[in-house]
Amino acid sequence: MKVDRLWRDARLATMTAPDLGIEERGAVAARDGRIVFAGPEAELPAGIVAEETVSCAGRWITPGLVDCHTHLVFAGDRSDEFERRLAGESYADIARGGGGIAASVRATRAASEDDLVAAALPRLDALLAEGVTTVEIKSGYGLDTGTELRQLAAARRLGAERAVTIAPTYLGAHALPPGTDRADYLRRVIAEMIPRVAREGLADAVDAFHETIAFTADETAAVFEAASRHGLRVKLHADQLNDNDGAALAARFQALSADHLEYTNEAGAAAMARAGTTAVILPGAFYVLKETRKPPIEAFRRHGVPMAVATDLNPGTSPIASLRLCAHMACTFFGMTVPEVLLGMTRHAATALGRTDIGVLEPGRWCDLAIWEVARPAEIVARIGPAPLRARVWRGE
Amino acid sequence: MKVDRLWRDARLATMTAPDLGIEERGAVAARDGRIVFAGPEAELPAGIVAEETVSCAGRWITPGLVDCHTHLVFAGDRSDEFERRLAGESYADIARGGGGIAASVRATRAASEDDLVAAALPRLDALLAEGVTTVEIKSGYGLDTGTELRQLAAARRLGAERAVTIAPTYLGAHALPPGTDRADYLRRVIAEMIPRVAREGLADAVDAFHETIAFTADETAAVFEAASRHGLRVKLHADQLNDNDGAALAARFQALSADHLEYTNEAGAAAMARAGTTAVILPGAFYVLKETRKPPIEAFRRHGVPMAVATDLNPGTSPIASLRLCAHMACTFFGMTVPEVLLGMTRHAATALGRTDIGVLEPGRWCDLAIWEVARPAEIVARIGPAPLRARVWRGE
Ligand SMILES: [Zn+2]
Ligand SMILES: [Zn+2]
Repeated sequence: MKVDRLWRDARLATMTAPDLGIEERGAVAARDGRIVFAGPEAELPAGIVAEETVSCAGRWITPGLVDCHTHLVFAGDRSDEFERRLAGESYADIARGGGGIAASVRATRAASEDDLVAAALPRLDALLAEGVTTVEIKSGYGLDTGTELRQLAAARRLGAERAVTIAPTYLGAHALPPGTDRADYLRRVIAEMIPRVAREGLADAVDAFHETIAFTADETAAVFEAASRHGLRVKLHADQLNDNDGAALAARFQALSADHLEYTNEAGAAAMARAGTTAVILPGAFYVLKETRKPPIEAFRRHGVPMAVATDLNPGTSPIASLRLCAHMACTFFGMTVPEVLLGMTRHAATALGRTDIGVLEPGRWCDLAIWEVARPAEIVARIGPAPLRARVWRGE
Repeated sequence: MKVDRLWRDARLATMTAPDLGIEERGAVAARDGRIVFAGPEAELPAGIVAEETVSCAGRWITPGLVDCHTHLVFAGDRSDEFERRLAGESYADIARGGGGIAASVRATRAASEDDLVAAALPRLDALLAEGVTTVEIKSGYGLDTGTELRQLAAARRLGAERAVTIAPTYLGAHALPPGTDRADYLRRVIAEMIPRVAREGLADAVDAFHETIAFTADETAAVFEAASRHGLRVKLHADQLNDNDGAALAARFQALSADHLEYTNEAGAAAMARAGTTAVILPGAFYVLKETRKPPIEAFRRHGVPMAVATDLNPGTSPIASLRLCAHMACTFFGMTVPEVLLGMTRHAATALGRTDIGVLEPGRWCDLAIWEVARPAEIVARIGPAPLRARVWRGE
């Protein structure tokens, strides 16, 4: 068998199993960007010939990391709000003064596609430096057709600028745009934006913010029905600040994922398990918002709900360009274990995006790898600061 | 006036005042590594001639950051303990099995000076990439004369390897070395190590860990008396896990700083103010140890105790190579304001080290600068991830 590239003398965490699917002396081979072998070096097919062979000197290889929930494309900066909140102003005061998401919408509407790409690149580069090879990016700071499409176009452009897979998500139902009639805006989301996003293939999924300060269950259901009619899978910002039965709502639509979930109840966890919906844990926003209610990790374990971890990278509630730090916080704040967060940044993050072509080291998937300068996988998460990354491989290169 | 270098068209946060001493159109000039001018560009001395002029295009300049509490020189990795704690093991179990600080002591004793320098450099580089120009480094993982001195020598070596000021601190009273008689060890600290450290100029200060699990008030006082006899200033790990009246103890010896302080009482804060002792806030260990008791920030404000923020970078309770993240945590967990943490990483961090030659942009001090790619100082702290640093200047270069 001829292959393009062969990594030998590596330790593998293939993510094929809950114990991380470890091979102490493993090898990975790639052809045309796909994995054609991943397993014990002793089982490499006889007669394998590689154009290039990389000796890993016992280093650990994991699948490239997957950040499955970000709002990475936006313009403007909201550090003034951070400062004002610490000086005593309330969120409500700031929002009344035109801050919060409205500030990001104003700045994003005023930005060109080039502006958006330029502003997003440093944030993307920070993730790539940690071994991330796939990034989900949501729209939702445009809240009008032109700007939402421009955000999604900028997201796709990032995939051309860097060696990374971008998974764009349409999030028109993020907030009600300032000065807009509620029913009228939802009508545009449903009748205009979703059909266009589907027709032009601009997003892989449709997301919504279901919360007392955002959209109701009925409104969310209407958005999801439109997505389904147009063949798009759905995801949901659910139960972040209140128990809104959001998990059950997501499950009712076979959502790929329900995200945040601090207030999710037992029935919601059970419904997610039945629907095959992944729980996306977002400790960054929990930290920044000084929340105290934690997602029901124990219930997700009991019901067998797969758990992913993501940055929620956004300008207000989670300005955190580090997936590893969010994994550390998921351990520290929520008691997730090291194997859980490692699976949550690879295999289960892929599942949260509905993808079976990444996230696990096995033949047929894209050869996206992170090669680590560590003695054991726990080190990938345990230290905060620059990632102990030796190399990053995207589609075999 | 002839100068070596002139930075113009900059915005300055000079740190000369609680409001950060801002100059909206400022300039800094350096000669022989020292600041000879820092102020409004309009007030630049007539006839100033610079060998090199840097136009800052309105960028912000602050003093180079100062990390005034680290245990950056050590060998070994303790990510296994992170994993085991998350899987349910207690600290006590881990310590009984030879983990915790004893694990770092074993690894550090087995390491050569070269090993220690090589292991520390990536951690130091992570801090430098954030604009840090001075780093305090404690011994305390040797707990025998040879290894303690080797740690201090490695710390000094780091200052030769990189453009950074290293402030070494002797922390022989960090823990009782395994298998050692208590009185006997303290006798060696007092009669052997402190005199040698002082005589050979190996450290700028003497620190101790005063805690129920470490050294008593009487033992700490004996160590501090020895330090004073040999002309060394003192610092104290105080009131981290219990109210031990540690702040008052530190104040009694005119300590440069008392550090941690989660359990410090009102009288302790008042005593620190009278003694001129800086409070060093260490939110990294608070986060990693999942503590709930917060340092009395309000009392420090009321009594006028200067507050610094530092990483406490160490292999167990604060494996965090990011001063900016620790500042963000000081804001988020403890309610410190943005100006407070910016002063806490510059002016007050310098004071915590007893230094009047760094930490503020004013004539006579070393020209250590951080030049930031931000629109406002709050951005230096508000975003988590790679630092928005344009350039770092150490002693004028
Ligand atoms: Zn989100
Ligand atoms: Zn310490």
